Amino acid sequence: MRYPERLLKLIRALSGLPGVGPKSAQKLGLHLVQQQDAAKELLQALEAAQSLHTCPVCGNLAEEELCPVCTDPDRDRQTICVVEGINDLMALERSGEYNGLYHVLGGALNPLEGVGPEQLNLASFFKRLNSDSREALGAEVREVILATSMTVEGEATAGYLAEQLAQRGIAATRLAYGLPVGGSLEYADEVTLARALENRRRLAE
Amino acid sequence: MRYPERLLKLIRALSGLPGVGPKSAQKLGLHLVQQQDAAKELLQALEAAQSLHTCPVCGNLAEEELCPVCTDPDRDRQTICVVEGINDLMALERSGEYNGLYHVLGGALNPLEGVGPEQLNLASFFKRLNSDSREALGAEVREVILATSMTVEGEATAGYLAEQLAQRGIAATRLAYGLPVGGSLEYADEVTLARALENRRRLAE
Repeated sequence: MRYPERLLKLIRALSGLPGVGPKSAQKLGLHLVQQQDAAKELLQALEAAQSLHTCPVCGNLAEEELCPVCTDPDRDRQTICVVEGINDLMALERSGEYNGLYHVLGGALNPLEGVGPEQLNLASFFKRLNSDSREALGAEVREVILATSMTVEGEATAGYLAEQLAQRGIAATRLAYGLPVGGSLEYADEVTLARALENRRRLAE
Repeated sequence: MRYPERLLKLIRALSGLPGVGPKSAQKLGLHLVQQQDAAKELLQALEAAQSLHTCPVCGNLAEEELCPVCTDPDRDRQTICVVEGINDLMALERSGEYNGLYHVLGGALNPLEGVGPEQLNLASFFKRLNSDSREALGAEVREVILATSMTVEGEATAGYLAEQLAQRGIAATRLAYGLPVGGSLEYADEVTLARALENRRRLAE
């Protein structure tokens, strides 16, 4: 039996998505073909989402000209948190602990894959640090939190940016290494454990 | 931060799909919002798939009036294989072992969930068995293979259909129980092992 060509096309489009293997693509495709309501809802949502774009200042997603973080008058405009992707930005927002601005790099340095500083969203970042643009930003940047991943690429990116920030006399901080909350020592890897020990804190007495 | 409303809508539409949890829905949504090509491909595939419908004879997916199995002149028209869903039909087609027709029930009997015979695609099934419709079908049905799942619901459905077929004097067969190919005894459950023992076959001498 030939499968209907339109179903095959749908399955192919789905199997190109991250985390969707051939089996789940087939399952999803059949579901969408058989459940007209689900297909219609997804179709409309996809159409509407086409008009989303990246914020020209920070690289976050935006419906208006600038993103909701950049236009929020209540956010601390002296702090910029640099992240690799929008998913990282969202994770930080969910923590509810951060009230500054963001800058989304769109990746991390990876020379082997051909990702150098030019391939990242850095031109607009350095422009933000420039004191000439202080007015546009509403305040001078005092601290940049380097919140790239704790991977080789993320560390390299943080190292590169720390150098660039030092040249400009801007304080750079890095997220803390350590054990995850709820994590047990038994299952922690040696490097994490060594870093957690190294960065141990005195308890309040 | 408010997420962009259009992204939230997309994530909501995705998280309603089978096997897509809230985390993967967010990942997929962000991917589709950031990869315009992937979003466009999925959008077009979804639009095209809207015109797929179920075959009025057997319940399989069809692009034309009837499905590709029902219109294939090379298939054995004396055998009908009854399956719960189109995914089951596709699994059987992949095995390459079956060359008859199909009938897709669209589920299995489940009185607790309110699924009785009326809720399944059975009216058209009994019509196919009716010898008056022999001409339309091209041949009389000689065997019905009950290929519903080996679950409580699938067994109940097979039992119900076997009765109905006996009343009409049509042979009903059921898929074999046993160990899966490549399966080891060690990991087989007791019921499967008991059935495999019960249905043991004499080897050719």
